[in-house]
Amino acid sequence: MAERVFSATAVACSNIAFIKYWGNRQDRLRLPANGSISMNLAGLETRTQVRFVPGAARDRLVIDGQEVEGEGLRRVTAFLDIVRAWAGCEWRAEVISRNTFPSGVGIASSASAFAALALAASRALGLSLSERELSRLARRGSGSACRSVPGGFVEWQMGSGDSDSFAFSLAPADHWALADCIALISTQHKEVGSTEGHRLAWSSPLQEARVADAPRRLEQCRRAILARDFQALAQVAELDSDLMHAVMMTSAPPLLYWQPATVAVMHQVRAWRRQGWPVFYTIDAGPNVHVICPQEIHAQVQAGLRAVEGVRDVLLAFPGGAARWVESGDEDG
Amino acid sequence: MAERVFSATAVACSNIAFIKYWGNRQDRLRLPANGSISMNLAGLETRTQVRFVPGAARDRLVIDGQEVEGEGLRRVTAFLDIVRAWAGCEWRAEVISRNTFPSGVGIASSASAFAALALAASRALGLSLSERELSRLARRGSGSACRSVPGGFVEWQMGSGDSDSFAFSLAPADHWALADCIALISTQHKEVGSTEGHRLAWSSPLQEARVADAPRRLEQCRRAILARDFQALAQVAELDSDLMHAVMMTSAPPLLYWQPATVAVMHQVRAWRRQGWPVFYTIDAGPNVHVICPQEIHAQVQAGLRAVEGVRDVLLAFPGGAARWVESGDEDG
Repeated sequence: MAERVFSATAVACSNIAFIKYWGNRQDRLRLPANGSISMNLAGLETRTQVRFVPGAARDRLVIDGQEVEGEGLRRVTAFLDIVRAWAGCEWRAEVISRNTFPSGVGIASSASAFAALALAASRALGLSLSERELSRLARRGSGSACRSVPGGFVEWQMGSGDSDSFAFSLAPADHWALADCIALISTQHKEVGSTEGHRLAWSSPLQEARVADAPRRLEQCRRAILARDFQALAQVAELDSDLMHAVMMTSAPPLLYWQPATVAVMHQVRAWRRQGWPVFYTIDAGPNVHVICPQEIHAQVQAGLRAVEGVRDVLLAFPGGAARWVESGDEDG
Repeated sequence: MAERVFSATAVACSNIAFIKYWGNRQDRLRLPANGSISMNLAGLETRTQVRFVPGAARDRLVIDGQEVEGEGLRRVTAFLDIVRAWAGCEWRAEVISRNTFPSGVGIASSASAFAALALAASRALGLSLSERELSRLARRGSGSACRSVPGGFVEWQMGSGDSDSFAFSLAPADHWALADCIALISTQHKEVGSTEGHRLAWSSPLQEARVADAPRRLEQCRRAILARDFQALAQVAELDSDLMHAVMMTSAPPLLYWQPATVAVMHQVRAWRRQGWPVFYTIDAGPNVHVICPQEIHAQVQAGLRAVEGVRDVLLAFPGGAARWVESGDEDG
């Protein structure tokens, strides 16, 4: 055990999955129905300072300058309880978190948030966790957060239980100069969050078939990444995204995350590919479309996406590194 | 065998499936992977005159005043060959067909066309076929055509083979005063036709699961129709439509029939239902959306659909009767 400094700050990237995580085989431990593969997103980051405070009655959570109560705070407290139990410390904590990406545009922050929190909280309480242990810990806060712990291109192996359900790096961030152009699409709908969505997965008549076919897709995706085979990655990633949305839209109640502009971008991306552009789409639990391409054509892809009706902005991210500990700077709260 | 008059005219309705047909277990005989249930659509009709001509070298096909050659003619000739073999007659035929619905808007005409052709051709050659035999015959031209032979609300039982794969009426057209408001949506894409699409169904990792769950959905749909339970029909029909499109969009190559306005209508229909309107959607192999509601609210549904961006027109159809023989009137050609 390292020195307890009771305060630490960590930064972690968001990630975009090419083989998606949807549905748990065990909810409490967030043991996934299938393995998944993702790419960390540099620049779409959460920076989190954790400070354990002797005598404080409860945890405090501040995200982007806003005090968070209710379900958001309860989830962080439940997560910190795991770290406190491991470290043998009962002090409550103050968690101050900032995202470098705009809030309320449907870019999920739970992956980067729980990866950064896992690292900062464990550091602050003097736990020296290996990358694998850290990934397992982050998984308990948000499944996909385990993939934001290692760097670059990452696989989360489903494992046989808590002990071996963690993520590891398939290749570092500089392995492949890909870009993620994220088409932001408005929606009026209040969306069902991922935690609730994962529970609904099994109500779809299609989830079992999607899960049964996952080993084949994981192998195709792994090979495509290691060989830098863009067309192979495009094919398996679009199929995998469509399979997840097929499950979502046929669950009870149905989750139709796509908006009209989502479908417009999907068609546009395929039209570009027919014209020879190396480009593919992948979509998470929301209307935004992640359009992946080699970095050298990101400007033309971004411009093309901005021209699609209903796309209100396009973010850009390159492959990102591992979650990292940083010197505490000025933090607000 | 009835008298051979060598000329006959028949009319058949199109139909909209609540439990969809997608994929065959045997392509040549069009034996479906699963049973299906539909409603005939009065007013969306094909009227077909068949005249067998002694000494003619080949069949002729005229649809809406246009001479048809190539694949369209070959399909009709292959179908007429079945009728000719049954009747022991080798004469070629002149087939003159008219649709009462606009062409080129994505309303499939093969169901009504082969139902009308089956009736007219068998009549002309003096075959007195029962409704079941006629339904089996129509199935050979286009699977869903077998459902346009009986009247009203119709089930196509998958059967164990050619002899018992036919459709029958669950309830007559006046059993339930439903309306089908068809939102017509433009597309620039040349779509993959149903015959080719059925072959692709098995390339989706989801088709087997969709088919395995079909008996459950068929039973729910049957009960909902017989009990005139709108909410139950809405739930199972939307699920079934989404399941078919899930298979389509995950086949290889993927078939994404939806356009932006398709998704806009899907969301609008569900928003209306949340507001208490009895209304649901179902979508065939194209971008148009069939919005089903009680007849008494069809005007407000039609007006609402016209206000959705990307909807260029709305057709209206009520439940339709069985395919019927008619006196030949004036026909062009």
